[in-house]
Amino acid sequence: MGFENKLAGRTSNMAASVIRETLKVVAQPGMISLAGGIPSPDSFPVDIMEELTIAVLHKYKSSALQYGPTEGFPPLREAMVPYLKGLGVETDSGGVVVTSGSQGALDILGKILIGPGDKIALEAPTYLGALTAFNPYEPHYLCIETDREGIIPESLEEILSQNEVKFVYLVSNFQNPTGKTIPLSRRQQVAKIIEKYNALLVEDDPYRALRYRGEDIPPIKSLIPDHTVYLTTMSKVLAPGLRLGVTVAPELIQKWMVLAKQGVDLHTSSFDQALASEYISGGYIKKQLPKIIALYRPRMDAMLGALDEYFPEGFTWSRPEGGMFLWAEGPDGVDTEKIYWEAIKENVAFVPGKYFYAKKGMGNATMRLNFTMCDEQTIERGIRILAEVLKKSMITV
Amino acid sequence: MGFENKLAGRTSNMAASVIRETLKVVAQPGMISLAGGIPSPDSFPVDIMEELTIAVLHKYKSSALQYGPTEGFPPLREAMVPYLKGLGVETDSGGVVVTSGSQGALDILGKILIGPGDKIALEAPTYLGALTAFNPYEPHYLCIETDREGIIPESLEEILSQNEVKFVYLVSNFQNPTGKTIPLSRRQQVAKIIEKYNALLVEDDPYRALRYRGEDIPPIKSLIPDHTVYLTTMSKVLAPGLRLGVTVAPELIQKWMVLAKQGVDLHTSSFDQALASEYISGGYIKKQLPKIIALYRPRMDAMLGALDEYFPEGFTWSRPEGGMFLWAEGPDGVDTEKIYWEAIKENVAFVPGKYFYAKKGMGNATMRLNFTMCDEQTIERGIRILAEVLKKSMITV
Repeated sequence: MGFENKLAGRTSNMAASVIRETLKVVAQPGMISLAGGIPSPDSFPVDIMEELTIAVLHKYKSSALQYGPTEGFPPLREAMVPYLKGLGVETDSGGVVVTSGSQGALDILGKILIGPGDKIALEAPTYLGALTAFNPYEPHYLCIETDREGIIPESLEEILSQNEVKFVYLVSNFQNPTGKTIPLSRRQQVAKIIEKYNALLVEDDPYRALRYRGEDIPPIKSLIPDHTVYLTTMSKVLAPGLRLGVTVAPELIQKWMVLAKQGVDLHTSSFDQALASEYISGGYIKKQLPKIIALYRPRMDAMLGALDEYFPEGFTWSRPEGGMFLWAEGPDGVDTEKIYWEAIKENVAFVPGKYFYAKKGMGNATMRLNFTMCDEQTIERGIRILAEVLKKSMITV
Repeated sequence: MGFENKLAGRTSNMAASVIRETLKVVAQPGMISLAGGIPSPDSFPVDIMEELTIAVLHKYKSSALQYGPTEGFPPLREAMVPYLKGLGVETDSGGVVVTSGSQGALDILGKILIGPGDKIALEAPTYLGALTAFNPYEPHYLCIETDREGIIPESLEEILSQNEVKFVYLVSNFQNPTGKTIPLSRRQQVAKIIEKYNALLVEDDPYRALRYRGEDIPPIKSLIPDHTVYLTTMSKVLAPGLRLGVTVAPELIQKWMVLAKQGVDLHTSSFDQALASEYISGGYIKKQLPKIIALYRPRMDAMLGALDEYFPEGFTWSRPEGGMFLWAEGPDGVDTEKIYWEAIKENVAFVPGKYFYAKKGMGNATMRLNFTMCDEQTIERGIRILAEVLKKSMITV
């Protein structure tokens, strides 16, 4: 009576995440975790949530608690227009779809676009949550090569010229896992290639507002709006627990996303959407964002400083200007999964980079380091200890 | 550049709901709508939301805003244990999975269980939201016959004896659309049949707490817990806008639901879950539920009274003891879709019953009538006008 025989074929593609299993030990007390992929709770506007709730109940009353349109709570769709404009995305409120986190958008895109065996092109390495969303729809992944500046346009063109690809997925700013930001010239090349092959781009942009230095770069969406499904989220600028994602898509894609979303969850929480709408239109976000940046910038700097000071020769790492992560790569022969277990013994955790590749056998010498969850001193100590573990292991090699 | 060529095959199963198109006119001012499928905003505890928020922020602080476990916010899983016990479902907190509305559970069940062409058995008529959730996974529906008391056990047995069925879906209490409740003797028969064929039952129970008279009947889940995925929701006892569903499933099904949910939305809103947890464990629900019942009971009675008084001969209707709907059926030859458009001219709306059948050509003489959205006087007037329209149309026939 196990019901294994009742499972759909696609479930075999939903195997328990190895990364989740591996990272279970991270929760041990005393662990310095550079492994997390989550914002610091100190970045949440806990102190204003009460005020926000009162404002929302006063303004929207029972409609903040009622069923609402699948596309999104109308005041939030309105409030997103100037916010998105600030990110470089032009739309009216009718072009905004609110989803249950960006994850909700990725799932729905998978649902409406991916049939078994369909080809999807994505960066190697790429965002793990996208793979988790797409896997159940049984895609075949094509990996776009990357270098220091992220996606290599020539590799994208090679893939699109030789394959029928359902869509191209990439994270343009402060990518998870690498922290890399695609420079403007490459964005222009990518846009041209996408247009040339009449391809569909899914540009995932969760970290854009978290820029700690340097200049904003326009999203690819702004270069080829009719070819791009643009995703962003309130998870890094308000709170991830509210599960609010925002999509601006070409008309046909939007239409099918909304139809699919009716079946998935009817709509995203009206109450959370009302809170977000007040957070933006009430001007709270303008006060909170500088606080978030002031919290994270010194942490990023502390990590970069500690890497410069302690990390062994042969290692290179990205130098992000924002976001939550950076990416380190060791010389050939380094096995960061082995190092992970050694580091755990010294109470330091990170994520072995190989988990972020859609295909096995890649990224064995890489690691993702998160700098949002620990304070500067802890980051410095964590990197110092990790560097020692690396040095020891490299002698053994 | 329409991207039609990028769509997955399954999207053809997600066609825009006819019912939605038909019901668009219902929003016209002056319309008496007996068409809605939603709770009255007067049933929401708007007045305590502020207090609830303050309690939640005090108790859970930033964890109410942070990413949380896919299975659910731990205090809500705890709080659901005694609540579910009150509904007749025995579980511990580890057996509770929180989804983004019951819709979220239906989608995930479809995802892990339904492959293209797989057979699903469900009542005729059935809950439309279930069809919307299952359709994208391309099932083949087998319709279980129903009568005055709901599902006919012999029809279920005939289906299970002749087909490999992935699962049986039914709504046991105050069914949407019919308002019918399956009597205990039939539940026992259904349980035996499910067990005999080692089938999997999905028992959807959103309205159970809305009983206005009569005695509670134990859920089928309590008879065959190992064969039943039990679903309920906070939508009718707190607020639907929070999108909170609750599932208690056999172990293997729970495991796959959680894996699938990681890809769908990571988890349901922590903040909304924290609110619901405080709503239950803080005792608010015990005060609110009698208010909801006191609001709806006279409305149901008003509708039943008006039907007795005004509806033409040849019509029969269900006499629910709770929930939100009742179901009327005219004699052969009555076409309630035609009557719908006549009634709209007189500013009264309902839902033609044929929309609630998985197969076309059934239920042409039926209609669903909602009694939660209008007050008693309006319901009485609506039924009177509708009865006049029916009488006129029956003369024409």
